Formats: sequence, structure tokens, C-alpha cells
Amino acid sequence: MDNVVISIGGSILVPDDHDTSYIKELADMLLRIKKDAKLFIVVGGGRIARYYIRLGRDLGADESYLDDVGIAVTRLNSRMLITALGDSAYHVPAESFDEAIMASKNHDIVIMGGTHPGHTTDAVSAMLGERVGAVRLINATSVDGVYTSDPKKDPDAKRLPTVSFPELVRICLQVEGGAGPNVVFDPLGAKIIARSGIETRIVHGRELVELEKAILGKDFHGTIVSE
Amino acid sequence: MDNVVISIGGSILVPDDHDTSYIKELADMLLRIKKDAKLFIVVGGGRIARYYIRLGRDLGADESYLDDVGIAVTRLNSRMLITALGDSAYHVPAESFDEAIMASKNHDIVIMGGTHPGHTTDAVSAMLGERVGAVRLINATSVDGVYTSDPKKDPDAKRLPTVSFPELVRICLQVEGGAGPNVVFDPLGAKIIARSGIETRIVHGRELVELEKAILGKDFHGTIVSE
Amino acid sequence: MDNVVISIGGSILVPDDHDTSYIKELADMLLRIKKDAKLFIVVGGGRIARYYIRLGRDLGADESYLDDVGIAVTRLNSRMLITALGDSAYHVPAESFDEAIMASKNHDIVIMGGTHPGHTTDAVSAMLGERVGAVRLINATSVDGVYTSDPKKDPDAKRLPTVSFPELVRICLQVEGGAGPNVVFDPLGAKIIARSGIETRIVHGRELVELEKAILGKDFHGTIVSE
Amino acid sequence: MDNVVISIGGSILVPDDHDTSYIKELADMLLRIKKDAKLFIVVGGGRIARYYIRLGRDLGADESYLDDVGIAVTRLNSRMLITALGDSAYHVPAESFDEAIMASKNHDIVIMGGTHPGHTTDAVSAMLGERVGAVRLINATSVDGVYTSDPKKDPDAKRLPTVSFPELVRICLQVEGGAGPNVVFDPLGAKIIARSGIETRIVHGRELVELEKAILGKDFHGTIVSE
Amino acid sequence: MDNVVISIGGSILVPDDHDTSYIKELADMLLRIKKDAKLFIVVGGGRIARYYIRLGRDLGADESYLDDVGIAVTRLNSRMLITALGDSAYHVPAESFDEAIMASKNHDIVIMGGTHPGHTTDAVSAMLGERVGAVRLINATSVDGVYTSDPKKDPDAKRLPTVSFPELVRICLQVEGGAGPNVVFDPLGAKIIARSGIETRIVHGRELVELEKAILGKDFHGTIVSE
Amino acid sequence: MDNVVISIGGSILVPDDHDTSYIKELADMLLRIKKDAKLFIVVGGGRIARYYIRLGRDLGADESYLDDVGIAVTRLNSRMLITALGDSAYHVPAESFDEAIMASKNHDIVIMGGTHPGHTTDAVSAMLGERVGAVRLINATSVDGVYTSDPKKDPDAKRLPTVSFPELVRICLQVEGGAGPNVVFDPLGAKIIARSGIETRIVHGRELVELEKAILGKDFHGTIVSE
Repeated sequence: MDNVVISIGGSILVPDDHDTSYIKELADMLLRIKKDAKLFIVVGGGRIARYYIRLGRDLGADESYLDDVGIAVTRLNSRMLITALGDSAYHVPAESFDEAIMASKNHDIVIMGGTHPGHTTDAVSAMLGERVGAVRLINATSVDGVYTSDPKKDPDAKRLPTVSFPELVRICLQVEGGAGPNVVFDPLGAKIIARSGIETRIVHGRELVELEKAILGKDFHGTIVSE
Repeated sequence: MDNVVISIGGSILVPDDHDTSYIKELADMLLRIKKDAKLFIVVGGGRIARYYIRLGRDLGADESYLDDVGIAVTRLNSRMLITALGDSAYHVPAESFDEAIMASKNHDIVIMGGTHPGHTTDAVSAMLGERVGAVRLINATSVDGVYTSDPKKDPDAKRLPTVSFPELVRICLQVEGGAGPNVVFDPLGAKIIARSGIETRIVHGRELVELEKAILGKDFHGTIVSE
Repeated sequence: MDNVVISIGGSILVPDDHDTSYIKELADMLLRIKKDAKLFIVVGGGRIARYYIRLGRDLGADESYLDDVGIAVTRLNSRMLITALGDSAYHVPAESFDEAIMASKNHDIVIMGGTHPGHTTDAVSAMLGERVGAVRLINATSVDGVYTSDPKKDPDAKRLPTVSFPELVRICLQVEGGAGPNVVFDPLGAKIIARSGIETRIVHGRELVELEKAILGKDFHGTIVSE
Repeated sequence: MDNVVISIGGSILVPDDHDTSYIKELADMLLRIKKDAKLFIVVGGGRIARYYIRLGRDLGADESYLDDVGIAVTRLNSRMLITALGDSAYHVPAESFDEAIMASKNHDIVIMGGTHPGHTTDAVSAMLGERVGAVRLINATSVDGVYTSDPKKDPDAKRLPTVSFPELVRICLQVEGGAGPNVVFDPLGAKIIARSGIETRIVHGRELVELEKAILGKDFHGTIVSE
Repeated sequence: MDNVVISIGGSILVPDDHDTSYIKELADMLLRIKKDAKLFIVVGGGRIARYYIRLGRDLGADESYLDDVGIAVTRLNSRMLITALGDSAYHVPAESFDEAIMASKNHDIVIMGGTHPGHTTDAVSAMLGERVGAVRLINATSVDGVYTSDPKKDPDAKRLPTVSFPELVRICLQVEGGAGPNVVFDPLGAKIIARSGIETRIVHGRELVELEKAILGKDFHGTIVSE
Repeated sequence: MDNVVISIGGSILVPDDHDTSYIKELADMLLRIKKDAKLFIVVGGGRIARYYIRLGRDLGADESYLDDVGIAVTRLNSRMLITALGDSAYHVPAESFDEAIMASKNHDIVIMGGTHPGHTTDAVSAMLGERVGAVRLINATSVDGVYTSDPKKDPDAKRLPTVSFPELVRICLQVEGGAGPNVVFDPLGAKIIARSGIETRIVHGRELVELEKAILGKDFHGTIVSE
């Protein structure tokens, strides 16, 4: 069966309040399509990660230590999705690629968070994509694709239906420099998918119908990054 | 040097907002007295633990799994205090008693959170007190001692300056049954300090002057549990 | 398939002499019924645990350290049952709930001993029951049920065919206070099965025909704890 | 400070009954001389190991699995000596050479048991001697040295005050073949001390005065193996 | 399915240059026969191990530390064969027998290197053979069997088609003493297969047709060690 | 004492032949200056890493897996330097930042290799510099500083005695694009030292006199990167 990696932001997954309806609907969708693909899901840190990182930075922590704090939160968020998925998912967040691969032998769905200081969960999802030979990588984020400029600021910004790997790397490096249109993937992650040629799809994570289509390789609303 | 164990609630330590002044003042006090006692601090889960446990319960998690979720948060909170303490503290939350003891050989202060489902951090602090032969255990909590009845409801409630071990066990079991005056320690923790005869001091964790006196074995405002 | 957790005392399992006939007969029975239920077996410490704990206490060990000593013996005992079960059982004692769950994906039977200081293997079995969503928990012990008073002392003691969860908690707390009729389950374990509503069956572990019926949910000689 | 490794049989250390007087006297002696040498003690399995190995073999376990059973018992025995030594000893049995070395940085005495199937604790002590550059290795065993023939059978057997490394290897291989005078060291251990030229002293472990002299490099009653 | 253990020397597997053709052909053969037997492959250290061990010895390392260096190289070599085998093989080198057994539940082929100082990968393969109840053990080495004398030196040396366990032990001990005909197995490994009666086949590892026949229990060119 | 991190290439450290004189001289120098600074040394992979990575890539391994192969070699190389340093160095390669920090409490010098796929050892050294609050980071590499263009190709290339953090990032990104003057640091490492403002010194690793001066913060021949 094809392997698909999904990177999902912590803020997409975990609510600001106590509303678990999105997680439940996401889990229902994933359980429905698990027969069509082996799913590896990488969960980000979101609001609670930012809360602890802000506290820690104010208390004098260095950036690498704060990365470890953030990783701990990605694993807490992962446990929420694991719970919603029940027995089809590996029952703990995988803490390494090797553990994720081992878990995939007995489970339809494997969830993990961050792995190591110095890279985001986007980069984790890209490396995991390499490791499992994923046919595609889905970035379920808070925008519905790559735009020509920042759609929040520029009314003429246009969504690009397709982007090449070199273009994605260039856009991500611009963003890092503070000049790019919007955040869609981190530069290290972009370089990794470029070197390995993994088709990557940017989709709004809250639009579950589009997310499902993106996972299954169907036409969807968003941006495809490919050669 | 004498070993002292301090159990501090997550809600005492970590703010609802982004105000780190309490953590900083607590750290200053602990660094000032670290020459007088080897300090083992057990940190609870507090607000963020309750947030994730509520989400997880709504998603269908069992209680033991939710304990693991809570433990992960106690370790995040621990990292905040570790950061504030700098090089005097073991640089990661100890995950077991054995690790805490090993870390204490090279550090003045060791921080840990929960260890295993089925135990609160109060019980962890009591077992750690046994393991390190603590001369006393401090419960830095949200009340300033054991009362004859719940001081929030009964204006005639009186704080007890001293309580015997059997009384503490009795009070804690009442609380568990829903009938006790107020929460000061969990029943398993109470039984453990009773069996080992570890002097225990209940003090309001936000009153740093009283907390310091309690740690150092001086007269303080609160309740002493002893034989 | 239904999950069933079985708590079996070390003294039931491991002989005082070198007679392995009980372990072999127990293994034969478990292998015969493994097609009807996924079995999780928690093994206690028994005679050898008591031997080392007595030595250690005489040498000055604290109670938490002695718990670790006892846990090591439960794992030795577990290895005896694992050997008798052959390839159907996970080949090492699971050291945590997470490891037990992982092992259960590839094995019909998973064996574990204690996990952490501060609770007995009864409490381990109760938490494991929560974690795996067990349909029932069997306590294979040295009495054939819960009695109105201690049957060794009182000729009028009567076995209770059914007991409610609150009654079990009450009886177990009495035992702890030194006043109860007989030991059937530890208080922490009793509270856990009560909070999760796991049907629990007390049966004499050496009566293999009754034990088999208890495991399979049939009528048996013993006591049922339920709502 | 000089490193000295001591191999002590489980049957020497742990009593058949509940008499802890030998362990206490041994601990007193070791604590008295800890200022003169860094001590690494390797504890064997003895009676309880043989009990479980016999049970396991009867139940059909393979020999490598039984080695693991024996190793678990050596660690239980180690915990008894650790308890008697108190804070001067590393608080858990080291499970590898690397852990033993790390522990030795903060402790006067480090205790360990077996490490891996296929090696006795004699071989473990020899490899540990290599790893820590021990000035000498003491084998505290149930005979008071190497004899010309088995002293239990031959009234003319004579104790050899000194033996060369090649002679020790030859004697140990004879024993293995069933023809040697008596058991003093296992062949793998003998080869290791021979290749590294570690002076080795065979002494009766229950003769504490002689054992102390052997450890400290003084004249003693026993056998010295050297170049 | 029958378990077969294969011990393969690092110099057989990994080339001096960059030629991977042998590894690929070996992998093709193993994948072809994986339906006929569960394969456990133990890989040795070879040229790179000798390089690092020589460096380390010149720098003053003790022999046990150098064993750990060699083990690290056996795991690197293992990763080459794992890569060539793809998804049929466990994706990392198993680091212990327990991990190898666990991995074998989900994989046709499990690869491991050394495990612990003091024994070669031959001894690892023998102990693994015990642990998994192997029907046979294949030693894929650089000679095509056991000879009456060293075939490189003595033109009259004759290959022995069969050898008994005691003869193998005797030959291996001679080799160790520097007097034996040629290296076919290490003495500890020889003793282990003798005690457990595991049929062992010595075959030239580069002769893939013979190796395949040896694995499958067919007639082959080499030496059979049996009772 | 000040913490100094040193990144040293595998090809600088480990010889092509069996000549250990450089490692010994480096070790002598480090032991001489250990009283002036706490040293953390990150060792790269070099020739043997490239050998295995080339084999693995030819056999079809993905890039993340090959990173793990390279990390294993960095740890082998680390063991060579550890051996040369003797008891002053932590006796095994630290496998994480947390282990490195713990080891630094009892050792003057801590050695580590790579930590995780996706990062070079340059990036590891930068993150370790953050984690330990290093006063400076030394990159002991195969060129003697940052040049205006590639000195191997352009006779007019000039070494820059100082470079700003933004310039280093820019140069490193150019190199990655194939257009830069020469390799001095990887882009991720450059970004990390820039965000944390760690003074970084580029020095030729084989020039031990200059390397010593660079470590001690004295004037040296090379390039200083600072604000």
C-alpha cells in the first residue's frame, strides 16, 4: 500500500477552547481512508508550544532548549489525535523515524511530533517521507496554498496551483528572510523534498473534504509542488 | 547535607498569563538556600494538564492514558523551573527516582514531575522522600495548612498548626470520599509519609517567605504533620 | 477479540519446591483458550520477593527501594510462565503498559510483572485493564472469593457470589486498616476498577477449571465484582 | 586512586536463611577500605539463580534465555549489597561497563551483576578489569585458592601460592572438561585476564580478614595469578 | 516456518572497493528463499573493524573497548545488507536477541551485528540459534569447510564433509592455541552449538549457489557439524 | 570555567593510513589546555563515512537513512579521540546534548558525533554551543579561514580576518547553491550561531599551534565570525 505523510499544524489540530469537534471529524475521515493508504501524521506544537516557549525565553532558556520544550508539546498534541483514532493508530507518539517505521507494521496510522532541536515538524515530515518512500506529502496548514504574495495583505495575491521544487525552496528562503509571501513550509523541509522529489501538496487543514482529496491523490483545492 | 523534598502544584508554579515573576522569585529563593539543603522538587501539572486531560477525556481516552498525558505536562512545567534555576539544577526533569538520585550527586537542586499512572505528584514526592531519606517534605500548595473544615465555606474553620500522621491519612481519605475539609495531600502520599515517618509541612506555595522557613526547618505559617 | 486481564499471585504460580506441574497445566489451559480472548497476565512476587524484601529491610533499605526489589522478582516469575507458554507469549516480561500493548499486536498472550514503586501487581492489573479496555479482570488468588469474614478464623464466614464496586473498595480499605475479612485486592486497584467499571472476578488460582470459566465469562465458583 | 575489581559469588553473599550478618560485615570492611581503592564489585547468582534456572530448564527454556534469568538474579543480589553499603555505593546495579565507569565518577564503590548471555560473572569481572585498568582482580569464592587437585577428594591436594596466567587458563579448561582439580575461574575470564595481564587473587570470600588483605595488595592466604 | 541463522563475515559482505555486486546478488538470493525459512543474519566486522581496532590499539585502548568499536562496525555493515534487502528486512540492526525476536514477528529477515564485548559474531549467531530454536546455523566464511590441516600451507589438506560437535570444539580450541588447521568458528560459539546440538554448516560465503543450498538444508559443498 | 565547542572534521582527525600521530598530538594539546576551558568536541565523519554512504546510496538507501549511517561513523571516530584523551574525556561519545551536559559535570572534555538526520556536525556544534552557553565555537576544518573566493582556483583569493554573522550566512547559502568561494560551515549551523551570537573561529585543524590559540581566545591565523 502507498505511504502518505501528513504534516498538520498544532493550531489546526488543537482548539483554543475545549471544542473537540474538528479532531473527531478529522479522525473519522482518516479512519475512512486508512484502507487506501498507510498514513504517517506529523503533528506540530501550536498555541501551547508558543506559550511555554515564550515563558521559557523570558526565563532565559536558549533556543535549542526551547526546541525541546516545543517537541514535548507536539507529542502532547499527538496524543489527542491518537486518542481520537483508537486502535487503528499506534498508541503512543513515535519518537523517531525508526520507531515510526516499526509501528507502521502493525498499525494503519502512525502519529509523531518533533524529533530533535534545529528543525520544525515540516522538516520531520519531509525526512519521514524520504525514510518511508512516501508517494506524497501533505502539508495541512492554515492557508489554502502558495500565493504570489501574502493574501492577508495584498488583495491581488493569487494562489499558484502548481509550484516546482526549486521555486518552493526559493519562496521558503524568502520567507525566512522576512520578505516572502506567506509561510507554507520551512526551508530545510523544502530542501529535503526537493532532493528526494516527493510530491507535496499544500492544503488548508480545516477543509476536510479538500484534505481528504489531497491525501488520496485526487484533484483538490490548494497547491501541488512537484518536478 | 540534609535532603528536603518539595512538592509544588503546577498551578502555583506556572501562570495563567505570561507573568514569570513568581517563578523568578521562587528560583532566587531556592538558589539562596541551596547551600543549606539538597533540594528535590516535584512539580505538578496545573492548568495545562487539566486542559489536555479534559480534551482527551472528551475524545474517549481511558484514565490511565490521561495520567500519562498529565505526566508529560508536569515535565514541561519542570523545564520552566529548571530554566529559572540555571546551572544549579539538573538540566532535564528526572523521569525516575533513580535518575533523580544520580543527578543529585552533581547538582544542588533536582526537579522532577510525575512518574507513572495511578500516582499524583504528591505521592511521587512522598516516595522520593523515602528514597532519599529526606529530613522533611514540603507541600507547597494553594492553602496555608490543614483546616478543621473548608475555610472557603466555613468562617469558623481553624487552621491546625500540627497534625499526626494517622490524622492526615484520615483527613485525606475523607477528602477522597468528598466529605473532607480541603485538599492538602493525596491519600497514597499520606500513607507513604506515615509509614516512613517523614515530617511534612503544608504551606502556601505563593508565600515565599513562609515557604523558605518551612524548607529550612524554621517556624513558619502552616501545618506540620509529624508523629 | 475481547481483552481479558488476569492477575496471578507469585505464590500461586511459582512453587516452593521444584514442582513445575501447576505452571505447565496453567499454560496448557491458557493456550487452549487463547483463540477466545487476548490475554494479558500480571504476575506477582510471592515467596522469593518476600525473601529478598525481608533481607533488604533488615539491611536498612527504604520501602520504595524494596518495591523495586519486588518488581524484579515479579519479572523473574513472569519469565517462568513465558517459557511454559512458548511462542504464543511475548518473549520477555513487558515493563510498561505501552510495551504490553505493542506486544499484544503480535502475540496472543502478554505477560508482565510490577511497574513502579507504590502499587501492587493488583493495581497494575487494574490500570492495564483500563488501558486495553478489558471486558473483564480476573484475580487468581489464594482464596475462592470475597467472604463476609475471614474464613480461616470464622466457621460462619460466607462467600459472597457478587459484590458491588463500592463494597469492594470498602472491604479493601478495611483490610488495609487491619480489620477486614481477607485480602482479595489492594485498595488502589479496587478504586481503579471502580472508576472504570471493569467487571472483576475473584477466583482461586489453583482451581484451573474454575479459572478457565472465569476467564471466558462463564459461571464459575468465586465472586463477581460489578456495578 | 587504584581501581580494584572484586568478583563475589552469589552463594557467598546471600544466605540460605535470613541471616544478613555476613553482608553487613562485608559492607563494614569495604566501607573501611574505600579510601584506599576505588572498588568495582561483580556479584554472582548463587542459590536463587540455580532455583529459577532449574525451573526454567524443566519448563523448556533454552540456555541463553536461562542466562538472562540468571543475570536478573545477580542484579537482585547486587541490590542487597548496595543497600548494606549505603550512600558510598552507586544506588542501582550497573547494567553495563559504560554505566559502571560513569557511576564510578561519583561513588567510591560500584556494584554490578551479569551483563549478557554466554558470560559468567567471572568473565564480567575480567572484562571490567580491562575496561577500568584495574591494578588487581579479586575472586572471592568458596575455596581458599588453586589446588593441585580437588581438596574435597584428595587429602594430598596442595594449595598453590602462585600460578602463572597460562597455568590458570590450562586449569580452567581442564575443569570445563570435567577433569580439573576445582573451580576457581571460568575459562573465558581466565583468557581475558591472561591477555591483559591483570594480577588476580583467589581468596575465600567468607574469610573477611584475608579478603581485605587481598584487596589492598597485602600478603594474604590464597593464590596469586600473575606473570 | 523453520528458523535459520546465518553468520556472515564482514569481509565477505563488504567490499574493499566500491563494488556492491556481491551484496546485491546475496540479497536477491535471500529474498528468493525467504518464503522457505525465517532468516536471522549475523554480520561481522571485517576490514573497517580491523582498521579502527588497529588505530584504537595504537592509541592505547583496552581490548574490551576495542570490542565495542568492532561491534559498531558490524552494525554499519548490517545496514548495508538491510538496505539491499528493502522492506523484507527489519529496518535497523537488532542490538539484542530480544529485539531480533520481536522484529522477526513482522519481518522475513532480521539482521544483527555484535552484541557485547568478549565474544565474536560467531558466538552471537550460536546464541541466537539457541534463542530462536534454529533448525540450522550457517557459517558463511572465507573457506569452503573444515580441513584436516591449513589448505593454504598444506597441499595434502583434505576437506572434511562432516565433523562432530566435540571435534569442532577441539579444532577451534587448537586454532586459538595457534596450532589448528584453519579458522572456522570461535571456541565459545563452538561450545554453544555443541551444548544445544544445532546442526551447523560451514560454507564459502562468496559461493552463493552453495550458500543457498546450505541454508535450505540441501546437499552443498562444505562441512556439516552435527551429532 | 568557560565552555568552548570545537567542531573537527572526520578527515582532519582520522588518517587515511594507520598514522595516529596527529590524534596523539591533538590530544596532548587538548589535555594541556583543559584547565583553561571546558571543552566540547564534535567530530565529523570523513572518509569512512563517505565510503559507507556511497555503498548505501548505490544499494538504494534514502538520504535520511544515509545520514544515520554517517552518524554511526562520527561516533566511531569520536571513540578514537576519546581513547587518546584517556580519563579526562567522557568515556563514550555523547549521543545527545543532554548526555553531553551531564557528562561535562564529571569530565574536562566531552566528545560527540552527529545526533540526527538532516544536520551536519557543524550544525550539531552550533546547537551544542547554544545549549552550553559557549563563549566561542571553533571550526577546525581543512582551510585556514573564509576567503573572498576559492583559494584553490583563484590566486587572488584573500582570507578575511573577520566576517559578520549575516555575511557568514550569506556565504554558506551561496556555497550550498554551488556558487560560493569555499566550504567553511553549513547554512543551518551558520543561522544558529547568528541567532545566538556565538563568536566562531575558522581555523585549519591540522595547524595545532593556531588551533590552540583559537580555542583559548588568543590571536590566531584564521577567520573570526562575530557581530
